[in-house]
Order: sequence, then structure tokens, then C-alpha cells
Amino acid sequence: MLSRIAYGAKLLGCRGVNSSCKRRPQAFKFEFSDFRRHSTSSMVIEEADSQTGFITLNLNRPPVNMFNLEFTQEIIASLGRMSSSQGCQGVVITSAQKSVVSAGLDLNELHQPERERLATFWRAIQDLWLCLYTFPKPVTIAINGHLPAGGMILSTCADYRVMVQGKFTTGLNEVRFGLVAPFFLRDSFRSCVGQRQAELAITMGTLFNPEEALKLGLVDELAADKGSAVERCHSILKLYAQTNSNARHNSKMSLRQEAVDRFHQKRESDLDFFCRSVLSPEVQMTLESYLKSLKQK
Amino acid sequence: MLSRIAYGAKLLGCRGVNSSCKRRPQAFKFEFSDFRRHSTSSMVIEEADSQTGFITLNLNRPPVNMFNLEFTQEIIASLGRMSSSQGCQGVVITSAQKSVVSAGLDLNELHQPERERLATFWRAIQDLWLCLYTFPKPVTIAINGHLPAGGMILSTCADYRVMVQGKFTTGLNEVRFGLVAPFFLRDSFRSCVGQRQAELAITMGTLFNPEEALKLGLVDELAADKGSAVERCHSILKLYAQTNSNARHNSKMSLRQEAVDRFHQKRESDLDFFCRSVLSPEVQMTLESYLKSLKQK
Amino acid sequence: MLSRIAYGAKLLGCRGVNSSCKRRPQAFKFEFSDFRRHSTSSMVIEEADSQTGFITLNLNRPPVNMFNLEFTQEIIASLGRMSSSQGCQGVVITSAQKSVVSAGLDLNELHQPERERLATFWRAIQDLWLCLYTFPKPVTIAINGHLPAGGMILSTCADYRVMVQGKFTTGLNEVRFGLVAPFFLRDSFRSCVGQRQAELAITMGTLFNPEEALKLGLVDELAADKGSAVERCHSILKLYAQTNSNARHNSKMSLRQEAVDRFHQKRESDLDFFCRSVLSPEVQMTLESYLKSLKQK
Repeated sequence: MLSRIAYGAKLLGCRGVNSSCKRRPQAFKFEFSDFRRHSTSSMVIEEADSQTGFITLNLNRPPVNMFNLEFTQEIIASLGRMSSSQGCQGVVITSAQKSVVSAGLDLNELHQPERERLATFWRAIQDLWLCLYTFPKPVTIAINGHLPAGGMILSTCADYRVMVQGKFTTGLNEVRFGLVAPFFLRDSFRSCVGQRQAELAITMGTLFNPEEALKLGLVDELAADKGSAVERCHSILKLYAQTNSNARHNSKMSLRQEAVDRFHQKRESDLDFFCRSVLSPEVQMTLESYLKSLKQK
Repeated sequence: MLSRIAYGAKLLGCRGVNSSCKRRPQAFKFEFSDFRRHSTSSMVIEEADSQTGFITLNLNRPPVNMFNLEFTQEIIASLGRMSSSQGCQGVVITSAQKSVVSAGLDLNELHQPERERLATFWRAIQDLWLCLYTFPKPVTIAINGHLPAGGMILSTCADYRVMVQGKFTTGLNEVRFGLVAPFFLRDSFRSCVGQRQAELAITMGTLFNPEEALKLGLVDELAADKGSAVERCHSILKLYAQTNSNARHNSKMSLRQEAVDRFHQKRESDLDFFCRSVLSPEVQMTLESYLKSLKQK
Repeated sequence: MLSRIAYGAKLLGCRGVNSSCKRRPQAFKFEFSDFRRHSTSSMVIEEADSQTGFITLNLNRPPVNMFNLEFTQEIIASLGRMSSSQGCQGVVITSAQKSVVSAGLDLNELHQPERERLATFWRAIQDLWLCLYTFPKPVTIAINGHLPAGGMILSTCADYRVMVQGKFTTGLNEVRFGLVAPFFLRDSFRSCVGQRQAELAITMGTLFNPEEALKLGLVDELAADKGSAVERCHSILKLYAQTNSNARHNSKMSLRQEAVDRFHQKRESDLDFFCRSVLSPEVQMTLESYLKSLKQK
């Protein structure tokens, strides 16, 4: 059974890269504690296909899979198990909810936070990006619902994106709420669509429907429903399985080196900036009234 | 009246960025002197729409809006007023001439120049680029005529470009005259079309008609005439108006950070190189015969 | 006769760049020894068109133009003659073989190599990339056969690429053999197709047929056969001939500066990494069995 893995063992996933080539950027390193803490969670439902070795992660934090600290750590822990599992040949990320993959950051983490938890939360978000962007095995995503703002960490870091046709949208719409997408998400977004379209999309805060997202390069193909989207992800993972896994990961790291280097250079100042911004009276007031308005609905 | 603004006040346009986030690149800073010097000019005709807060800058240095020192300073001063005006919600750049937006550098600035004026001129050209590329409010351009070479500072730095259909062309054709587009213009051009098409276009010195420019990504859409081009610019500015202005500008600066950093690193050596090249006997001879041939026409 | 050139003279090709502008990246410098060593070779057949000054290099190391040390040095030497020749106005690279332009590295160079020769070989491969990527005259390629893996140095560094329609493929398929394309080839490949498509193509090891390669931007146009591909290359070279050669080369160097800077920064560590990898028992065993299987065919 692929989905039950002894996860205390030292993780092997990234070793090939780090040991063989010092020039390579530093991939995400899973730590023991990531795996213990949330091993019995139901926020990430793992489905393993024992024939292919492909594992589907169904995100399951109703109603809209918002990233709070625990859920983010849960996803990282689950990815850690996939990374270390000899049997896992590739990952499909998708949602257990009907119409949303993830609505992004859970604003409750930002409203009147303890300073320390806030920092831990943002580190987890940064880690989620790094973990996915440098993941040693192929990651695909079946986008079976809305995927705005911070939720796009899941799609822009993946190796392949299939979006379900329908009334769903995806895009970095932060500017519509007075926010700025973090630099690392900007980088993975821009790597999908290029500089010009990234400028236009991000400064406008545009949300794209599936057809537009496909045309822009934000997703790689469309599918009729979740089932066929996951199936297409499996087909892509089968193609990846024909390549040498070490060489593939080294190639991926080589191609993503500039963004990963930038991440390591900037993550501390980004954390500092994030915490100071969120803790400012101005942002707290905006959050307060926004959260109040949500409750009244 | 938006077009009449007390411009002695400290400029606020870029403050949000600089104060809130030290990681951001340094935007253009308008100085008091920029605004005093040419306040009564008619080389830049400002038309304000008091309902929307959109201001149209009609470039008006006949016959072909070539950038000499005074015209360039004028444009910067006008942009400074827009930047500091609380009422200004966005800018449309266009031409008061019938068939040319700008023919680029005024070669008279380069022919037998005083060394000091030459340096001041090139600093102004550099400033024009930085000012537009980092402008805190949305900038659109209605390209209602030819826009070759250095004139493309106006379009490649804008947030949105509409080109009028017709026998107009645009492109970096410097190599046809033995010149090299400056590195900052290369950067903003490349950010529109990508590395490969930038290489091909710049090393060939290709001038593109509106359809080609659209296909390449050098402009974002076409319009039938100047009126409808300006109208389309207004529609885009209305979309921008739905976003948070601070967040939008911070996002723009984040996306343009690499090129702006490069600009600050290289502007002095670029200035030095430019002056030495222009003052060389070889370039002076070429200019002399070229300007003579123009006069004979 | 263009193809017979006194090659002892100091090479002029890159001088314009290096002397006029210290900010520019360092182009490849041909050395005297490159030109003496293999002047009577038949591995690179030069055909000069004395009317146009265009020179066609027919690669001729049967059966599949694999790069060993001598062939690589030969190509560099031939390019050196073109670079220094006053008469040469542009280059067309093509293959004298029927269905292969180049199959990439000659694996015999990697199998049980002398350490010194291995280092010399890899330096030559690096030099071939730098020489082509910074070549002072326009380089075009008529791709009249397969062009996988390392062979793509020839196409991705060229200024223009025409591919012959047919059952040929091109792409970086290294991951299928457990290898990683070197960073410089990754850079020139990525500059053609952009970040996203480079990631997908290289991590999948995809080989593209001519139509796919055209759509991706890996080649610029298709032709019916070798003759018409070479003809189209000539048409492109005629367009380049209308530009100022110094300005054109300076523009090319400016546009390619980042990748060239990276090359100079990393070439030594890349050499070190390459030699250590190849000399590892693991790679030697893989090579041994692979070469054995080839001989049995």
C-alpha cells in the first residue's frame, strides 16, 4: 500500500540533487517533524494507485480549502511522504470540494494574530511554494474548481496543469483587495505566462476562465470533468515515468535555479515585510471590516 | 480642473512604494526643478477628463516629436504633475501630429554638442524611461502614427498599448543606422515580446506594421483611428481604477524589479559610453553627412 | 575565393565589440592555434558563394556527425576562418549527411577517457557554444535531418533556423538517457521557447517533429528540402546584410549578455562537474553496456 509509509526514515527524495551537484540550487528539505505532527489528518486525503504508483492528494478543508497553518503543514507533510516513498512515481493534486481548489490564504490567520504564529504561518506558505517548486517527483494538478490568489501556489509550481471546463476562474487577483502577491508566487506565475502577460494579469488582478487560462499558458489543457482531468494527469505522469528520475529532477532544478536562488535570498526579508504589513493598524482595520462583512452574509 | 495643479508640493506619487517596502526597486523620483522650468510649454498639451480623472498628453513638437532636451524635460515635468495630482487616475499618451508619435532622438542634440548638454540630454532620456517604467499610475498609449527607435520608450514602458491601424510602423531599427538601442529600451522591448523575438527584431532592425506589432505582442490591440484608440485606453484605465492603487503599483514595481535594478546599476556607465561614442570623430562625421542630406531634401 | 583565407592574421571578428564597450559581455576569442591545427580537414566542407559572401558549412563526419574532440575543434576552426574573413558576410550551417545534422556528443569520448583529453573535449564543447552564441556575423542553420541533444548547440545559438519537413526530430532528450543538458545549452534553448515550454520539453525529453518545432519556436520556418532551406537562409542573410554589422553584433551581444555572463561564471565549475560525473564508476558502467549494445546492432 503506497499510502501507508514509514515516514520516520531519513528522506531520500532530494538527495540525488544535493549530493551530486553543488552548483544546483537548494531544494526543499523535509524535516522529521513535518511528518509526525499531522499523520492522521483528513484534510489531505491520499489515494494511491498501486499499479502505477501515482498518488492523488484530495485537498479537503471545507468549505473552500483555505490555507491556515495546520492545513498548509498538512499538505507539506503529505508531499513529504510522497517524496520519500520509493513507490510513489508521481502526484496529482486536486480538490475534494465541488467548486473550489483553494481560495488561498485563510484571513483568520492574519486577523489579530499572535506574532509568532503569524511568522510560522508565513514560513509554512513559503515552504509550501519551495516544496512544490522543487519537488523531486512529477507533480500534476487537476484544477476542478476556482483557484485564485495564493491558491495558485498549487498550480504554478506544478509540472503540468489540467483545468476542468466550467464556471471556474483562476488568477492573481490580490490587487483587488489591496494586496500584493508575494515575490515567489509572482515568479512561478511569470514563468508560466511570460513577463508581459504577467504584468497585465497581476496589475489588473484578472481572473481567467478555463479557456482564457489555457490560451494564456496558465494551464496546459482542459478536461470535461474531474475524472477525466485526473486521468489526463495520469497520462502525463506515465510520460514522465519514461524518463530517468534523477536526470529529470536535476533538469527541473537547473531550469528553476534563478527563481529558487531568489527565494533563498529573499525569504527572510519577505517574512519580515509580511509580518510588519499584516500587523499594521491599517491592514488590521481592513481585515476586521472584511471578516465582519463575510460573517453577515 | 485637473490640468492645473499646484506643483510646488512634495510629490506623493511614489511614496507608498518607497516607504512601505525596502526590498522594492527604486522608482523615479520627481524633483521640484522638473516642474518649474517648463510649466507654460505647449510641447505637451494636457487634456483632462474631469469626470474620470484620466489625462491625455498630446505630444506636440512638430514636425515629428523628436526628443531634444527641452521636449524630454517637458514630458517628464508633465508626467510629474500627473503623478502628484490627487485627481489624476491614469494617463493616455498620444500624438498631436498626424502620422508620427515620435521619431526618437533629435540628432541635433548629438551633432557637435557641448559635452555638458550632451550628458544632461542623455540623463533626461534615461529619466524619461525610468519615470514611465515605474510610473505610479496606469499609463496607456494611443499610437496614432509611426513610432520607431528611441520613440518606443513611450510604448514599451506603458502599461497598455493601442495602435491605430494604417500605414504606420514601430520597431527598434537602430541597427540600420549603425546604432545600438540602449540597454534600458532593450529591456522594456524584450519584456513585451520575449527573448527570441527581441533578438530577431532588434538585430534585423525590423519595423512592424500594426497587425505585425499586435501579433508580436509589441502592442495589445488595434483601433480604427485616434479617437477610438484613446477611447480604448480609457476603457483600460477604467479597469485599472477597480484595483487598489498602492497594491497595483507595488505589484508593477515587483514585476519590473530586475530591469529597474539593472537600470540603476548601469546608468552611469551607459551615460559614459554614450557620450564617448557620440563625441568620437567617426560618429560626428556620420551625423554631419546625414544631417546635411536631410537639409537638402 | 572566400574559402581560402590566410588565417594566421590576428582575428578581427569580435574586436569592434570588445574595444568599443567594456560593459559588453566577453565574446569568444579565436586563438591562432585553432586555425592551424585542422586546416586541411574534410569534416567541415566549406562552400563559398563569392557573389554574396555567404559561406555554407557542410558538417561531414559520417555517419551521424557526432561531436568528438577533433570534429568540434574543426567546426570552431572553420567558424574562426569565417569570422576573420573580410569577405564572409554570413554563415549557413547544414549537414552533408542525408538524415542527421548531428547526433550530439560522441560517447566514445566519454567511455574510459584519459582525464586530460576528457577535459579538453568538454572545453571544446563549451567553446563551440560560446563561439556560435557570440558569433560576430549572422549564423543561420538549415536543419536537414535529426538534431537531438547536444547537437542543438548548432541550432539554438544560431540567429535563424530553417528546418526541412520530413521525419526528422529535434529536442533535448537527455533525460531519457539519464543525462542533464548542460546549463549553457539549457540557456540557449530556453531563449528560443521561453521558460514554461523549456521546462516541459526538457524534463520530458521530448523530440519534436518539424511542425511542432515551428509551433514551439524552436525553429523559425520550414522548407521542403535542403536546397530550399539553404536558399531561405540566404534570403535571411541578405536581410541581415542591410544592417550595420558592428551595431548588429553589439545588439546581439547586448541581448545575449545575461547568458554569456553566466557562461563565463560557470564554465569552470561545469567542467569540473562534467569530468567528475563522467569518470564515476556508475556512468562508466552505463556507457559500457550502452556502447556494447550499439555494436551488436
